[in-house]
Amino acid sequence: MARTSAQRLKGFRDFLPQTMALRKHVIGTFERVFQSYGFLPWETPTLEYAETFDGKSSEEAQTLMYRFADRGGREVALRYDLTVPLARVIGMHPDLPMPFKRYHIAPVWRAERPQRGRFREFWQCDVDTVGTAQPSADAEILAVVSECLTAVGFSTYRIALNNRKTLSALARYSGASPGQAGHIYRSIDKLSKIGADGVRAELLNAGLAAEASDRVLELVSIEGENAEVLDTLERYLAADSEGVSGVREMRAVLDLLPCFGVEPRACTVDPALARGLDYYTGIVFETLVEEPKVGSVTGGGRYDDLVGAFAGRPLPTVGTSLGLERIMEVLEELHLTPAPRVSADVLVTVWDENALPNALTLSMELRLAGVPTEVYLGAPGNLRRQLTHADKLGIPLTILAGPDEHARDEVTVRDMVTGEQRPVARHGAATHLRAMIAATQETPA
Amino acid sequence: MARTSAQRLKGFRDFLPQTMALRKHVIGTFERVFQSYGFLPWETPTLEYAETFDGKSSEEAQTLMYRFADRGGREVALRYDLTVPLARVIGMHPDLPMPFKRYHIAPVWRAERPQRGRFREFWQCDVDTVGTAQPSADAEILAVVSECLTAVGFSTYRIALNNRKTLSALARYSGASPGQAGHIYRSIDKLSKIGADGVRAELLNAGLAAEASDRVLELVSIEGENAEVLDTLERYLAADSEGVSGVREMRAVLDLLPCFGVEPRACTVDPALARGLDYYTGIVFETLVEEPKVGSVTGGGRYDDLVGAFAGRPLPTVGTSLGLERIMEVLEELHLTPAPRVSADVLVTVWDENALPNALTLSMELRLAGVPTEVYLGAPGNLRRQLTHADKLGIPLTILAGPDEHARDEVTVRDMVTGEQRPVARHGAATHLRAMIAATQETPA
Repeated sequence: MARTSAQRLKGFRDFLPQTMALRKHVIGTFERVFQSYGFLPWETPTLEYAETFDGKSSEEAQTLMYRFADRGGREVALRYDLTVPLARVIGMHPDLPMPFKRYHIAPVWRAERPQRGRFREFWQCDVDTVGTAQPSADAEILAVVSECLTAVGFSTYRIALNNRKTLSALARYSGASPGQAGHIYRSIDKLSKIGADGVRAELLNAGLAAEASDRVLELVSIEGENAEVLDTLERYLAADSEGVSGVREMRAVLDLLPCFGVEPRACTVDPALARGLDYYTGIVFETLVEEPKVGSVTGGGRYDDLVGAFAGRPLPTVGTSLGLERIMEVLEELHLTPAPRVSADVLVTVWDENALPNALTLSMELRLAGVPTEVYLGAPGNLRRQLTHADKLGIPLTILAGPDEHARDEVTVRDMVTGEQRPVARHGAATHLRAMIAATQETPA
Repeated sequence: MARTSAQRLKGFRDFLPQTMALRKHVIGTFERVFQSYGFLPWETPTLEYAETFDGKSSEEAQTLMYRFADRGGREVALRYDLTVPLARVIGMHPDLPMPFKRYHIAPVWRAERPQRGRFREFWQCDVDTVGTAQPSADAEILAVVSECLTAVGFSTYRIALNNRKTLSALARYSGASPGQAGHIYRSIDKLSKIGADGVRAELLNAGLAAEASDRVLELVSIEGENAEVLDTLERYLAADSEGVSGVREMRAVLDLLPCFGVEPRACTVDPALARGLDYYTGIVFETLVEEPKVGSVTGGGRYDDLVGAFAGRPLPTVGTSLGLERIMEVLEELHLTPAPRVSADVLVTVWDENALPNALTLSMELRLAGVPTEVYLGAPGNLRRQLTHADKLGIPLTILAGPDEHARDEVTVRDMVTGEQRPVARHGAATHLRAMIAATQETPA
C-alpha cells in the first residue's frame, strides 16, 4: 500500500487516550468547582473578525496571532485568548443578567516558538465575573482559583496579590516621568528572578534617575505580614488617592478570604507583582507553584474597561485564566493525581466464531449492569492475542468462555494483574462482576 | 465610553449557557455510551498540514476547506473532518493496540453557505474501530449509534443499511459503463426524495441507456423484510462475487444486531442508499429521523483503505459520525430532552454591607454540602434587584438574612417559583437546604 507521510504541525499536539484521561479529570474537577460557585459555561467560535482583537491586545499578541483572509476576503483570526471574545459576546447580549459569571474552557492559538511546555495550540480555563466592582467578586475569584488547585492535588502554592492602582501610584511616587511607568512595571515584575540589583540596573538603563530607582526599590522591597505590608504601603502613598484606593481594595479582598475558607497565609501581598497585560485596572494576582519551581500557573485580575468597550457602558470585570498545560505538567511531574484509567473494566474474549453471539450477549448484560465492557473484535480464537490486547489497554479483567465453561454454564474470570482465574456462573455473571469490580476499586492500587 | 462594534462571523455561533446545558447533556450522554463499549477518547489539533487532507477528501471538501499559509509559510488547514486526522494519528503511532477503538468529539470547519441548521463551525462526534474487518465491529457501531439516539430520547428513527460492494455490483449488473457508476450512486441516493421517475430521468440525463436505467431501478426498488430483500439481491447479483460478498456482509451484521439488544426492525436494508463519500468500501448506513422529517442525523460505514494510507499497511476500519447540530435541532424541536438547568441551586442575597461576611460563609457551607450556590456579588442591599437576578438566572431558591433573621439565628428560604418563604435555623441550614433541593428534584417540573 502506498504510504502517505504522516506529519503533525510543530507546536501542536495529539492527546492520546492516556493523556486525555488526566486532562478530562482536571477539566472535570475545575468545572465542578466553577459550577459550585454559579459560574455558567459558554463557548465562542474559533474564528473571529481579526479587528475584534485590535486595540485590545498587546503588540506581542498582534505578532503572535494566526490571521488570514477567508474565502470571502474577511480578515479573520484564530482566537488569541478567551477575554476579548468575552467582551464581544457581552457586547452583543445586553440582556444578560448582571453580575454575569461565566467559565470558558477552550483552546487558543499563538504562533510562539515551540519549546518545552509552550505550544501553539493550548487550552485556557477562564472564569470571569462581569458587571460588578465589589471586592467580594475579587475575593471569590481568588477562592475559586485556590479551590481548583487544591482539588487537583496542589498544596505548595501561593497566591501573590497586588493592585494596578498601587503600582501606578508607586510610579508617581518614584518621581519617574509618566512615560517610564511601563518600564518600571516590567522591571519590578522580575524582582524574584533578577534581584534588587538587577531591577535597579534595568531601571537605570531605561533612563530612570538613581533616586527614582531607589524609591521604586524601597516600595517593592517592603516585606512582612500582609497587614504590615499594606499599612507601610499606605503610609508611603498617603498623598496619592489612587494608591490609597489600591491598598484599601487589597485589604478588603484579604478580609473576605477567610469567609471563603481560604487560609490567609495562602495569599500574600507582593508590591512587585505587575502582570504583563495592559488592561488590568485593579487587583492583579498570580499563583506560584513553589515545588517544583514552575512559576505562575494561573494569573488574573480586575480589568474594568475592556469588557465595556463593546457594550458601550462601564462593565467592571474580574477574572482569571488557569493554564491547563502548566498545571498538567506539574501534576504529571509530581504524580499528584493518579492518572485515571480510560479503558473498559472488562474484555470479553471470543473463543471461536460460534462463541461470538454468546460473547456479545454477555457484553451487553455487563454494560446494562453499568460495567464498561469491550468485546474482542479481531478475528475470534487465539486467546493469547486477546489477553495481550487486554494487557496493552490496561483492562483489569477478562472473561474466557470456551466449550468447557459452556458445558458447565459458567464463564472464567481472569484477573489480569495477578493472573488468577476463577469460575463464575453464567447466569448472574454481570451482577457478580460488577461486585468484583467495585471491590477492586476500593482497594488502593 | 467609546463603543467598538461587536460582530460575529456568519456561520459561526456563540453558545450561551442555556444552550450549553443541552449540548453538554447530549455530549455527556454520548460519551457514556462510547465508554461503556470501550471506545477511548482522544483529541487532535485544530490545524493540520493542508496536504494531509489532499487526496483523502472529495473535490467538494477541497473547495470548502479553510486553508492559509501560516507565518512560517506552511500551507495549513482547519480540520475539515475527524476521519483524516484519525488516519494521520494512527499512522504516527504504529504501537497502538489493534483493534483500536477511539471516539473524538470536536468542531470541524467548512466554508459552506450558512443556512438554517448549516454552520461553518460545527461539532462532530465520531466513533471508529480500526484494524478489524469482522462484521462484529460493524454491528457494534450500529449498536452504539442506536443506543446513543435512544439515550437522548429518540424513538422514531430508522437505520438504513447498504453495502458499497453491492452497489458496485449493481452498477455492473445494469450494464452501464464503469465511468457511470458515480452518477448511478448519486441518483439512486435521492430515490426517496425524487422518486423512481426522478431517478430514471437523472440516469438517462447522465447518459445511461434506458435498459441500464431500468435495471438499476429494478434493484433499488426491491422491498420487503430484510431477509427477503437480501435474498432477492443475492439472486440478482449471483454472478458477481463482490456483490454476493456485500449481501453476505449485511446478513452477518443483521444477524449479530439482536446480541447487542438492537431490535431487528430498527435497521432496514435499503439498496438505494449510497452515501456521498468516496472512501467507503463495505457497509454504509444512515440514521433517519422520521418525525419531524429531518433526514439523516448520523451516517457512516466501513472504509478499509483510508486509515492504512498513512500507516503503510492495511487497516480496515468502520465508523460513524453523529451530527451534533442536527441532533440538537431535533431534540429542541421535539422537546425530547428537558433542557437541564445550568444555574446554581441557591442564591444567597446580601442584606447590606455588614451582612456580607455571613452571606459568604453560608454560601461556602452550602457548597461544601454539595449545593451549587451563588452569592449576590453586586452592590449589597436592594433585595428586589437580587430576587430579580435569581429569577433571570432561573435559580430556584434564594436565602434572605436580614437583622430579624440574624436576631433569631435563622435564615429565610424563598421558593422562587411559588414565592413561599419559610424560616430555617441558621445552624444546619446547609443540610436542610440540601434535603429541600433533593425533594424538589424528585418532583417532576
